[in-house]
Amino acid sequence: MSTPLPATATDASARPVDALFAPRSVAVLGASDDPRKWGNWLARGALRGAHRRPAYLVNRRAGTVLGQPAFRSLSDLPGPADLVVIAVPASGLDAAVDDALAAGARAIVAITAGSHESPDAAAAQASLAGRVRAAGAVLLGPNCLGVMDASELLELAAADLPAGAIGLISQSGNLALELALLAGRDGLGFSRFASLGNQADLGATELVRALAAHEQTRLIALYLEDFRDGRAFARAAADSGKPVVALAVAGGAVTTRAVASHTGALASDDAAIDALLQAAGVHRVRTPQELIDTSSVLLRCRPMAGRRVTVLADGGGHGSIAAAECEHHGLTLPELSAELRRSLRAGLPDAAAVSNPVDLAGGAEQDLHTFDRVACAVLNSGEADGLLVTGYFGGYAEYGPEAADEELRAAAMISEVAAVTRRPIVVHTMFGAGAAATALRDASVPVYATIEQATAALRRLAPRPGAAEIPALPEPAPPIETTAGDNYGRARELLAAGGVPFVASRTVGADAEDALAAADELGYPVALKALGLLHKSDAGGVVLGLSDRAALRAAQAELGQRLGATRFSVERMAPTGDGAELLIGARWDPRLGPIALAGAGGLYAEVLNDTAVALAPLDQQPARALIASLRIAPLLTGARGRAALDLDAAARALSALSQVAAAHPELVELEVNPLLVLPSGALALDARFVHVPEEI
Amino acid sequence: MSTPLPATATDASARPVDALFAPRSVAVLGASDDPRKWGNWLARGALRGAHRRPAYLVNRRAGTVLGQPAFRSLSDLPGPADLVVIAVPASGLDAAVDDALAAGARAIVAITAGSHESPDAAAAQASLAGRVRAAGAVLLGPNCLGVMDASELLELAAADLPAGAIGLISQSGNLALELALLAGRDGLGFSRFASLGNQADLGATELVRALAAHEQTRLIALYLEDFRDGRAFARAAADSGKPVVALAVAGGAVTTRAVASHTGALASDDAAIDALLQAAGVHRVRTPQELIDTSSVLLRCRPMAGRRVTVLADGGGHGSIAAAECEHHGLTLPELSAELRRSLRAGLPDAAAVSNPVDLAGGAEQDLHTFDRVACAVLNSGEADGLLVTGYFGGYAEYGPEAADEELRAAAMISEVAAVTRRPIVVHTMFGAGAAATALRDASVPVYATIEQATAALRRLAPRPGAAEIPALPEPAPPIETTAGDNYGRARELLAAGGVPFVASRTVGADAEDALAAADELGYPVALKALGLLHKSDAGGVVLGLSDRAALRAAQAELGQRLGATRFSVERMAPTGDGAELLIGARWDPRLGPIALAGAGGLYAEVLNDTAVALAPLDQQPARALIASLRIAPLLTGARGRAALDLDAAARALSALSQVAAAHPELVELEVNPLLVLPSGALALDARFVHVPEEI
Repeated sequence: MSTPLPATATDASARPVDALFAPRSVAVLGASDDPRKWGNWLARGALRGAHRRPAYLVNRRAGTVLGQPAFRSLSDLPGPADLVVIAVPASGLDAAVDDALAAGARAIVAITAGSHESPDAAAAQASLAGRVRAAGAVLLGPNCLGVMDASELLELAAADLPAGAIGLISQSGNLALELALLAGRDGLGFSRFASLGNQADLGATELVRALAAHEQTRLIALYLEDFRDGRAFARAAADSGKPVVALAVAGGAVTTRAVASHTGALASDDAAIDALLQAAGVHRVRTPQELIDTSSVLLRCRPMAGRRVTVLADGGGHGSIAAAECEHHGLTLPELSAELRRSLRAGLPDAAAVSNPVDLAGGAEQDLHTFDRVACAVLNSGEADGLLVTGYFGGYAEYGPEAADEELRAAAMISEVAAVTRRPIVVHTMFGAGAAATALRDASVPVYATIEQATAALRRLAPRPGAAEIPALPEPAPPIETTAGDNYGRARELLAAGGVPFVASRTVGADAEDALAAADELGYPVALKALGLLHKSDAGGVVLGLSDRAALRAAQAELGQRLGATRFSVERMAPTGDGAELLIGARWDPRLGPIALAGAGGLYAEVLNDTAVALAPLDQQPARALIASLRIAPLLTGARGRAALDLDAAARALSALSQVAAAHPELVELEVNPLLVLPSGALALDARFVHVPEEI
Repeated sequence: MSTPLPATATDASARPVDALFAPRSVAVLGASDDPRKWGNWLARGALRGAHRRPAYLVNRRAGTVLGQPAFRSLSDLPGPADLVVIAVPASGLDAAVDDALAAGARAIVAITAGSHESPDAAAAQASLAGRVRAAGAVLLGPNCLGVMDASELLELAAADLPAGAIGLISQSGNLALELALLAGRDGLGFSRFASLGNQADLGATELVRALAAHEQTRLIALYLEDFRDGRAFARAAADSGKPVVALAVAGGAVTTRAVASHTGALASDDAAIDALLQAAGVHRVRTPQELIDTSSVLLRCRPMAGRRVTVLADGGGHGSIAAAECEHHGLTLPELSAELRRSLRAGLPDAAAVSNPVDLAGGAEQDLHTFDRVACAVLNSGEADGLLVTGYFGGYAEYGPEAADEELRAAAMISEVAAVTRRPIVVHTMFGAGAAATALRDASVPVYATIEQATAALRRLAPRPGAAEIPALPEPAPPIETTAGDNYGRARELLAAGGVPFVASRTVGADAEDALAAADELGYPVALKALGLLHKSDAGGVVLGLSDRAALRAAQAELGQRLGATRFSVERMAPTGDGAELLIGARWDPRLGPIALAGAGGLYAEVLNDTAVALAPLDQQPARALIASLRIAPLLTGARGRAALDLDAAARALSALSQVAAAHPELVELEVNPLLVLPSGALALDARFVHVPEEI
């Protein structure tokens, strides 16, 4: 039987995570004079902070490192080593950690990779973490790139990170390097950085909490490959009170999981991560550039009150392209009012367009303050929630020093307009390295090199659901035993007991008289299902619309003969013509727990890939919202003159299923397909579960 | 009645388009000493080519311009002016064109905007174009930015364009500036440039033909807001024999067109442009950066034979992100064979991953040629159609001069591998301005600053349908008169005559006996439809499943009373349970001609937005492909044990509808919804058309 979720570290509040970022003293184990070695970079970093805290260099052979006296072992140090950085060969890791703990270290950074190729690697790491925790210390790594705190002048990372307001947690070294480069080019930097490595002890959750409590950190950014306890992470992110931006790639071992139901296939790892991060109010990004672009707009701008954007261009082409990109991102470009158009028109050339996009049509070549005047008029009018400036601004300086000065003044006015109106201005310019662009960035106006980056960033400011309650898991129910056989019957029993309404039915054996008696009780027409097949419909194990005893008898005989079926479900025919079919289901993810899914049902489930996913269990209200977010939702709410269907009943069924799933971690997949949603009520017509494989 | 498509210019082969790019002499009308005036830039450009051809500066007041003698008028020139560039105030445009023609100009570039705000602007431009054509000359503009030909040293544009292999046609000035900047940063440039302006005479089609015939142009790039005759353009692009990349934004007046059918709403302007460009084999892009990124990969790489990509990273993070982006773009990352993995493993550190992505895990820090060795092994294995290198390559130079030299050698080897294996290598690097990146670009390996650009570019090399036959339009049929009344009946008649099969029906008046007689003939159950309503279902004007005479009589009475219906269609009930419903339709686009549409039918048409669009008319085979491209196609081809339906019959119906639509330009929208596709055959159950508004 699988453990439902990985064990979480002990309560972070009691643990000395701060010793990682603000240690009283630092020792570098494996300090080196060889510039190609990590022990060299780390030693140099430690020495740069030596005026703030004692920095001890330890090398078991050398007398000096970097011209400083080196110590042969931690036990030789003249004082305690609060933070020990380990950069020794892998074989020495275990002993080094023990030495560090013996020397009183509260925090350990294990750059050393450890022997993670060995089959006992997991056990070795668990033992390491156990010793660290028992000693009341924390460990970052092993196999990590180090740690940095800008205001503490702590530079113990093999990457040069510019100082700023982003707290960065990364599970990849080169990615942190790229983020540092991209941030620097955008005038951004880092308050703290922690490289996760293998997360033997400290994981993303505890580090997010540490960044949440860190005043100089205004935004938390992460690159994560492994969430560990995804819900604990989501709670930490939701509770941080700061914008959180995460680059998380689905992948690794989990993607190879076997999938036996629609739900298993449709609630992909990637969709599950979406559900987790959305519940936590985290901005998910796909690439390093998007992480920095998003951080820039979130750090520099207030959120928009709505989705209405005005585009301001100094050329028709840029205006059209930016408008199309905005609409692509779900932003709207309402036409400006006649009054506003009149007032804009007054200050612009005849050829200018004053609808939306506004096209200055050369107006700025006469007077660069056309930009800030239009920005001021538009944002003060209340007709736009944000402004996108696109095109040539930033390049007028090329006309000469006078134009350059004027452009700087216009840039100052533009940032002033954003500050005063408390509405964001986002700028795309071809001249991102110029003085005007730099001035804008310095004055909290985000500037992007391409239209697509500017529009993608702007939509991050549009209203979005904030962090939700991360659902708690119920106490596990007594597990379902796994046996072959009547999967459908047992799923139905379990779900019905949990409150999912099923169509009236009787389970019978191979005896025709029993089936006939059941049908008499239920009333014709009936449906007959052969039990003991996972995909009954695909196997031809379902016969619908049996209108009399003869038809039922013939169907039962045929199924018995063709499929060898010996158990059957006789069911009242559901009024399918009056309703619409949904798929509802849940699956257990090893890192994120139970994930609920709603989708187009029946035949459409996989054909349309119209699904929505959320953390389970779901209450009635979020279950309703999930169903309402489907593309096919208009079929439920009364499209084109059809009667509205009972969305609430569907939501109750999904909520009930999600509760059952959450209490049964041994059921990796559980689904009802279809759920027939009727004008009044909803009926489950079929159900199945997939039990966790025995061998796990 | 509207003219179906705008008039095309006369046959380009007879017109002196070459005088635009390779004139024997040049005159600048409005040449100026004032550096803020276009006449100044153009005069300087003309003088830079004065060693190649006479350059005459004309200014009616000044004796000299830029230190050269100026002429007071074109009639004063000492020789003929083959190309005349007009940069005079708008009011002087007409006279200037006439003067130029009188002076023997074969080509005219009208920078001057003309008075395009006036209500007669269109007529004035048409008259201008008429005079130019009558004189056997060509005109670029008015309201354009000029023209450039790199090998001719012709620089008559208000933009500095680096020389290279891209032939650029742009309808926006600032956009051309941005493209020039972006191309320059990527080591690319332009063979020819023409700014379209208002396209009074020369349009994109003729210019594409000129670029197709121009040897130094290896790729044609366009920014277009107005296609004019879209099909002529598509034919020119398809026939060019060169890669064509187009940035085309839907918009302008057309988007405000009224829409009265599903087809009108779903075959959007943007979808129609997609259909046009796809038929022409044109690469459509959305932004200037994407245009340059796409040009880079198409100019520098051979197309891939398949979609299999191997990702080569020097860090797990970059590998995972690039892999996810590749899959997002429909590329596949098959696992490498055991044999190839073994051979890669031999040269890499223990921690390296040799599946796909390949992660060097620090291997390159020991030996930079790890990159080219892995590239060589992977591309020679035949297991990948292309290679994506992502991460730190380009930054190893930071380790010192030795590493920098080694990295340059590795770059040379990487480009050698691409050249020898004839398979593309695309590189993402954080250090795009470095020497290794520049060396790669110079050796025809495209280099991108972000992972998303690199992966988006790589997918442009994946196999795609080439240019198709651009369908010719049939002779227009006698137009349908527009009257109110029985739209359905007339649409049915028209389509049935064209070969679209309809369910058996009889049209009757208000007399109940007629309806009953019709039903007797057709056989019960029947459906009854009230005629004269555009959306019968929405209005409740359709009653299905009338099983006997009494039911039919009651339904007819009720519809007569409630809707005032006096004409009805009595129809045999279609066996809807056995089939699936499609929407098939067409609309006439003023620029692109008839556009055919297939989509999910009935209630699903707008809910799912599952549609596909192509240029009409369609033959049977492309009609089938269009339907097969729908998400719901598996419902037709036999999803999950269902019987396969008659896709060929559906294709025949769509083809027939598209032929009818193409012959009736007065029908702006024409559709069958639903088309019931059965196991054998297909039946149109409803139809409508929208006539071009009377006032047009």
